[in-house]
Amino acid sequence: MDLTKITSPSFLKKMTNKELESLSREIRSFLIEKCSITGGHIGPNLGVVELTIALHKAFNSPKDKFIWDVGHQAYVHKILTGRAGQFDTLRQFKGLSGFPKRAESEHDEWETGHSSTSLSAAMGMAVARDIKREANHVVPIIGDGALTGGMALEALNHIGHEKTNMIVILNDNEMSIAPNVGALHNILGRLRTAKEYSRAKEDIEVLMKKIPLLGGKVASTAERLKDSLKYLVVSGGAFFEELGFTYLGPIDGHDFEALDKTLEYAKKVKGPVLVHVITKKGKGYKPAEEDTIGTWHGTGPYKMETGDFVKSKAKGPGWSSLISESVRKLMETDERIVAITPAMPVGSKMEGIQRDFPSRFFDVGIAEQHATTMAAGLATQGMKPYLSIYSTFLQRAYDQVLHDIARANLNVFIGIDRAGLVGADGETHQGVFDIAFLRHLPNMVLMMPKDENEGQHMVKTAVEYNDGPIALRYPRGNGLGVPMDEEMTTIPIGSWEVLKEGKDACILTFGTTISMALDAANILAEQGIDVQVVNARFIKPMDEAMLHQLFAAKTPILTIEEAILQGGFGSAVLEFASDNDYLDVEVERMGIPDLFIEQGSVDLLLEEIDLTKEEAVARIQQLVKIKKIEGTKYV
Amino acid sequence: MDLTKITSPSFLKKMTNKELESLSREIRSFLIEKCSITGGHIGPNLGVVELTIALHKAFNSPKDKFIWDVGHQAYVHKILTGRAGQFDTLRQFKGLSGFPKRAESEHDEWETGHSSTSLSAAMGMAVARDIKREANHVVPIIGDGALTGGMALEALNHIGHEKTNMIVILNDNEMSIAPNVGALHNILGRLRTAKEYSRAKEDIEVLMKKIPLLGGKVASTAERLKDSLKYLVVSGGAFFEELGFTYLGPIDGHDFEALDKTLEYAKKVKGPVLVHVITKKGKGYKPAEEDTIGTWHGTGPYKMETGDFVKSKAKGPGWSSLISESVRKLMETDERIVAITPAMPVGSKMEGIQRDFPSRFFDVGIAEQHATTMAAGLATQGMKPYLSIYSTFLQRAYDQVLHDIARANLNVFIGIDRAGLVGADGETHQGVFDIAFLRHLPNMVLMMPKDENEGQHMVKTAVEYNDGPIALRYPRGNGLGVPMDEEMTTIPIGSWEVLKEGKDACILTFGTTISMALDAANILAEQGIDVQVVNARFIKPMDEAMLHQLFAAKTPILTIEEAILQGGFGSAVLEFASDNDYLDVEVERMGIPDLFIEQGSVDLLLEEIDLTKEEAVARIQQLVKIKKIEGTKYV
Repeated sequence: MDLTKITSPSFLKKMTNKELESLSREIRSFLIEKCSITGGHIGPNLGVVELTIALHKAFNSPKDKFIWDVGHQAYVHKILTGRAGQFDTLRQFKGLSGFPKRAESEHDEWETGHSSTSLSAAMGMAVARDIKREANHVVPIIGDGALTGGMALEALNHIGHEKTNMIVILNDNEMSIAPNVGALHNILGRLRTAKEYSRAKEDIEVLMKKIPLLGGKVASTAERLKDSLKYLVVSGGAFFEELGFTYLGPIDGHDFEALDKTLEYAKKVKGPVLVHVITKKGKGYKPAEEDTIGTWHGTGPYKMETGDFVKSKAKGPGWSSLISESVRKLMETDERIVAITPAMPVGSKMEGIQRDFPSRFFDVGIAEQHATTMAAGLATQGMKPYLSIYSTFLQRAYDQVLHDIARANLNVFIGIDRAGLVGADGETHQGVFDIAFLRHLPNMVLMMPKDENEGQHMVKTAVEYNDGPIALRYPRGNGLGVPMDEEMTTIPIGSWEVLKEGKDACILTFGTTISMALDAANILAEQGIDVQVVNARFIKPMDEAMLHQLFAAKTPILTIEEAILQGGFGSAVLEFASDNDYLDVEVERMGIPDLFIEQGSVDLLLEEIDLTKEEAVARIQQLVKIKKIEGTKYV
Repeated sequence: MDLTKITSPSFLKKMTNKELESLSREIRSFLIEKCSITGGHIGPNLGVVELTIALHKAFNSPKDKFIWDVGHQAYVHKILTGRAGQFDTLRQFKGLSGFPKRAESEHDEWETGHSSTSLSAAMGMAVARDIKREANHVVPIIGDGALTGGMALEALNHIGHEKTNMIVILNDNEMSIAPNVGALHNILGRLRTAKEYSRAKEDIEVLMKKIPLLGGKVASTAERLKDSLKYLVVSGGAFFEELGFTYLGPIDGHDFEALDKTLEYAKKVKGPVLVHVITKKGKGYKPAEEDTIGTWHGTGPYKMETGDFVKSKAKGPGWSSLISESVRKLMETDERIVAITPAMPVGSKMEGIQRDFPSRFFDVGIAEQHATTMAAGLATQGMKPYLSIYSTFLQRAYDQVLHDIARANLNVFIGIDRAGLVGADGETHQGVFDIAFLRHLPNMVLMMPKDENEGQHMVKTAVEYNDGPIALRYPRGNGLGVPMDEEMTTIPIGSWEVLKEGKDACILTFGTTISMALDAANILAEQGIDVQVVNARFIKPMDEAMLHQLFAAKTPILTIEEAILQGGFGSAVLEFASDNDYLDVEVERMGIPDLFIEQGSVDLLLEEIDLTKEEAVARIQQLVKIKKIEGTKYV
């Protein structure tokens, strides 16, 4: 069938399992083809083709509410709800989102991006339903990886207590982003291999009848013994039953009959139900099926026939790999270093560390809070923890950074991966808040390198720094291809670097926006405006000596940051000027405005928000003009 | 014995249980007496007297590491480690902290204040020990309430997986701050009443032998049946066993023999152990023992003989009760409102809501993340969730506010209790970061009332506001005792209010610091300096019309906020000036400097950081002087 003709999932109701299987094949081909061009979360989506179809057949969306945890596995849902025609624009500027979006469809009840939110959101929706005396199903779909996020566990605890009607679909593919870790993962593993227990249910009932009727104490013990059987025998899911859920499963998530029977049964159960569905990530596409480490979780474009990734034309090394490898090198001689990642060993390219230092490497699963405070615990014992975490996910550990690390002034080295705009993942993943939420923390050092060579020196700087927490933010993507020094050296904390001298105005910037500043300065030079460009590599503490110099010389200043403007680096410069009574020096700020930034290529996004060299040129022209007018007027 | 003579816990090693019991009595009397004067967390500490003694007898601190979760139950630990003599200064400025403090003692290995950090910290310490090939015990002590915090569950999941050696003491007093909620609480309840199961172990073994030997399938089922018994019979702690812990208990936490035997056994077990200890909060002091709602969790001074609390002499109503009661009133006519608290029904005075609207009130336990995203879920369904949360604990839900509420622009009303300095609880509890971490979130409205009458109008304003999230911050303590309007009305979003006219300078401030500003203005009036005072009640969005007016008139501005300065309200004013090219107007900022603020009375703390009317006077004098010089120079 022509998938782009689908307008509503209601057509599924009348289809036979055979027809659904044929539809699954078509959807798989469609996804494999579309994602080979646009890139995307192909692995997770191939895994949930049958599950998504079965859900839309069993339930009535949008009356019944599907809540896709993380949300990157909602492509099939998008196809079934009338959005197949937009897949050519997937994850592109103004195109189809890679995550559920309320503005896209009434079938997208919950927007996500970050993991482990679905159960809490579902609880809110279920409570609303009950207060309004409505009758609909609330169906969160959560992966085994996302289930270990603290907030999902908080929600399980609350839902099980309130006994709220809800059908939780546990999509267990034995991997989240990387192979899963954690005791819960082991529990699920035991459940998967314990299938025979449920099959033996009838046998056991026979057995129970044969237990001789005994008098007194032993008889009542036998009664209790019968009770105890329900845990391992009737349901198999002691862990979830203990939490107050009815556990159903495990069932094969690619078997329409099993899905149909179980979902229909789940609808009839009172209270919260957890349906344990086993799926295979990447199902139906060999390169993705055979992935054991998570390479096919989310990809760029690839050759459909071979599964070869289309190579990027980047000059420099990938930032994640540059930083992780620099840490790895220092781990060879510095035994204090322990590396921690919350489920991002692949994304943050920590495979080398994992290989060389297995006992000093910890992938704690999707558990940013635990990862952060575990790092603090290590630091109390004289170790030097390296906490590697994406900027957007560090948001989850704000209190832990504040309360457990910064307040106690512990020597934790935080590597902030994907700082700045990240592009195709959109609003939920832009790493643009970390400066605003870290800069106001006492004791915090925050820095960003201008290129990969300075990046490796900053790793060394962070490892050698023993006066409290230090964070190194670095962007998504690749370095500039600059020559690398053989030796890693330290950079004085709080020191900035003049990249280009100039007397008419000064641009203070760091990281990715340095090239923009240099380009602007070159353009302005042709107009006879002589602009200094400073690599303000320490966002906190700032180079106060240099700032005093600039303000004393009444140099107009433009700050540029690929980060939210409120409370950001530019504001720090304004605060400095105010605190030091520099009244008559103009400071202009460029950065991310007071908006959540949508998906799209970083270049397009920068243009959209006027974070461009052209804007920098215009701002400096304006600054210089103001200064001249003042000159005329006042001096 | 004279408790103040204790210098180290080693004296406990040789004591008999009888002597320990006598010591327990002395410690109880000491605590009841001292806390009656200073106030403090008397209930939790009375509950852990025997447990703390037993721990210090069984282990060797500081070689073995005690990690007190939350930390407010460490008074006995402080007494046993040589700090009894400092209890007269408990929770006072420069005095003994109410929480563990690394600077106070080598026995305080971990600093806390916020809940649920102990297991992650313990994991860090245990990993450090193993890497360094040291041999010591790591002993986190966590309450049943703190255990449901997401990060504690994340840590359980990781520890159980890694099989790290660690002895977790679960201090189960059936209450945390308020009576506990959640499925885990129910599990613990079942374990408490399931003691007889372990006693019946031998009976069951007898029974098992009587099961007839059957051939084939049924026989192997019987084998599995035997396996299954270990969950309920041998250990009783299926939930924790499933997570990879050896479960021991439950034992009576006031029985030295049981404690001694179990702790000695726990030391020998390989891998993580969880010792389930049942204690009674408030044990040995009748008024506290009889508390069922949490009144005696933490208290001010009280009359020792009667347990009557010493009444405060506040003029106005308590802020928490004022705000909660205002919400309750609106709930009578607005059925969209659903109130949520993460374990603070007592602290935030929500008893009236709970009583009148039980089906629209949710205490979710210590689970700030879940509470926040559950609110978001409710909002997607057209409800108006009221999320009541302390400023310091909202830090835990920063990402949920950002990603689930602000990004999706959902109509959630956040009541931020205890915003600003909180006094005796110290560094970990000061509510001084919320402006800095909320102001940079797009779509967020943030306000603070000048008095309780404006407070009730702001509640109305928040309930009626349907354009996205809105947060109302209010301080700890009591209102001013102003007359209350009968009708609650709305205040225009983003509108400020001139409290006192003046032409020489302007103070922009809000909430608790308004009186300071008015006092300063009065002092300055006597010096002939005419200062305007503005109630800048909307921190975001600001009253831009008024700001334009002020800047256009070149009025020097002083901002005052009881909040961290970096990225705060004053910075917002600086940003406004920069964005609008107001170059030649001086803006001075007063607020919390780049430090964590210690414990002490709020007045003393404000003095310590120069957040006083005297400083405001001096700053304005300086501003006016600068303006005059400029006047001379430029005009």
